Amino acid sequence: MIRLTQTVQKGGCAAKVPALMLREILAGVKFPPLIPGVAVDGALFDDAAIFNLTDELALVQTLDFFTPILDSPYDFGAVAAANSLSDVYAMGGRPKTCMAILAAPLATLEPHVIQAVLQGASDIITQSQSSLVGGHSIDDDTLKFGLSVTGLVHPRKVWKNDGARAGDKLILTKPLGTGTLCAGLKRETYSEDVIREAIDSMKRLNNIVDFLADSDAIHAATDITGFGLAGHGMQLAQASKVSVYFAFKQLPLFELTLASLHAGHLTKAHRSNDEYTKAKLRHSLSDIEKMVLFDPQTSGGLLLSVAADKAQDLVLTLAPHFPGVAVVGEVRAKDSFDVHVE
Amino acid sequence: MIRLTQTVQKGGCAAKVPALMLREILAGVKFPPLIPGVAVDGALFDDAAIFNLTDELALVQTLDFFTPILDSPYDFGAVAAANSLSDVYAMGGRPKTCMAILAAPLATLEPHVIQAVLQGASDIITQSQSSLVGGHSIDDDTLKFGLSVTGLVHPRKVWKNDGARAGDKLILTKPLGTGTLCAGLKRETYSEDVIREAIDSMKRLNNIVDFLADSDAIHAATDITGFGLAGHGMQLAQASKVSVYFAFKQLPLFELTLASLHAGHLTKAHRSNDEYTKAKLRHSLSDIEKMVLFDPQTSGGLLLSVAADKAQDLVLTLAPHFPGVAVVGEVRAKDSFDVHVE
Repeated sequence: MIRLTQTVQKGGCAAKVPALMLREILAGVKFPPLIPGVAVDGALFDDAAIFNLTDELALVQTLDFFTPILDSPYDFGAVAAANSLSDVYAMGGRPKTCMAILAAPLATLEPHVIQAVLQGASDIITQSQSSLVGGHSIDDDTLKFGLSVTGLVHPRKVWKNDGARAGDKLILTKPLGTGTLCAGLKRETYSEDVIREAIDSMKRLNNIVDFLADSDAIHAATDITGFGLAGHGMQLAQASKVSVYFAFKQLPLFELTLASLHAGHLTKAHRSNDEYTKAKLRHSLSDIEKMVLFDPQTSGGLLLSVAADKAQDLVLTLAPHFPGVAVVGEVRAKDSFDVHVE
Repeated sequence: MIRLTQTVQKGGCAAKVPALMLREILAGVKFPPLIPGVAVDGALFDDAAIFNLTDELALVQTLDFFTPILDSPYDFGAVAAANSLSDVYAMGGRPKTCMAILAAPLATLEPHVIQAVLQGASDIITQSQSSLVGGHSIDDDTLKFGLSVTGLVHPRKVWKNDGARAGDKLILTKPLGTGTLCAGLKRETYSEDVIREAIDSMKRLNNIVDFLADSDAIHAATDITGFGLAGHGMQLAQASKVSVYFAFKQLPLFELTLASLHAGHLTKAHRSNDEYTKAKLRHSLSDIEKMVLFDPQTSGGLLLSVAADKAQDLVLTLAPHFPGVAVVGEVRAKDSFDVHVE
């Protein structure tokens, strides 16, 4: 049976263009002017764009795709879909339409493998109550899959990454460690059965809007993906002009996360995320522990900045649906670091 | 200087998954149910999806990306953008937001090359009066670029591919031949200067909505891309339950199109488009001439099915903006072939 992870060099969000390189490239481009209605674009590294249609209706739009991080085509498709949909949830939106991005080596990959990828994605899209309305497929050297997703949100109910306030509590909805565990899978140290906990987590929708009676308690949100907790935490802190303080002991981890990091299952992104955040991160962690902060997540959790008096209730509400969800730190007034880990 | 076309095996829309193979793959997938609001999805091979938001507002959504068909990074980005935007225009919509799909070999491609691709795209997006609001980039073996585009349209002003009526005239907005000319470029028979006419055509927006006083004369529309005039003509005929009749002598061609086909500059898509349409196409063309019908277009023209008494006026209106635009045939009642070429 084909092992998808062996068909590519870099898998999942670890294949993302490193943040610093991306910034350098984008700095040399004169982008089109923003037309009226664009309320959030890519400039602040927010999760998705917001385009206001009416006083009561805005589009939330995002796009994501990557190479296989798993051997099972079905699970890979499911994870890729959940990962793409997550950015809409991270803005407080509800997904409505999806379009598929598929690149596949037609000469070597059997049709049933591609079908399984599409089926995994379709089942997650069904869970999200959105529809698959189109897409594009090309013949390519390696498999890549993802979605362009459009959701709807009320323009005044958008969770941006610039709304965190000093005094907020920080909540993370999923355990950390998908980067190192998938690296261990790729090196054949782990089987998919051994890292099932992480696979199930990556397939889980970040659909917290479906469980909230009151979304006003959430002041800011972002989803943790390729830049890791440190990178996305830094982006949130900078956009909100605050500092974020994480308590390392409270960070939810998969059972094998530290063991896998200890075994040296690292990706290029671990190093580039370290470099990306170096000047703005203060911690006193061991060399192994700090890699938790740089671990590139695929379909990672949402990081929520929440009114302190609502945080515990929110965790209780989400706990039945999100194993590991926890208060992981707090927001303080801006100091000389963006991210502290204690 | 790097020659982008030499970095990939298949370029442009010729790298699209062949229609028959795609259909076979999709037939094995149980897709998510369509949620309320989805008015057009991928099932009829229409150019873009339609999602109704209100009685007066619908989204038009499409997604497209491909490998380099040109050596100039700027022109490649511009063509890829115009090609993606075209599907929104083909539905009568006006593009509003774009998200970039970028895969690039970071180790071998210099930043200025990627910047030029993005600049070419940005300048076309600016022309289209839409904005670039986000995107995703990955490190990959070969360069790929494209856009996910969302436009707006009035729900009752959508040009679908199922509205062609017997008696309509068919108008094509751009000359045919980009597939064979780009194949000749890739084989280094032609320079970009020699095929400049085709490059300029591929960079041209299909923004006919910007020039029309009255869009009601257009009963159906589709844009001609990877499946060629025969393939997309067949899809329009089948969706509309009519037969389309093209007059070969009236088809606009680039100056070098026939010479290039005669020289044997063909792609895999020429053959797969032949197979795709074989059972439903009647013609008496020579082996060279018939390849015009199968030539995979990148950023090709719109094929419009138009009320007969409005066709000539429409051509006159569009002629200053679309070199080669012409009446190329007519629609008749359904017979035993979908496409006739006389």
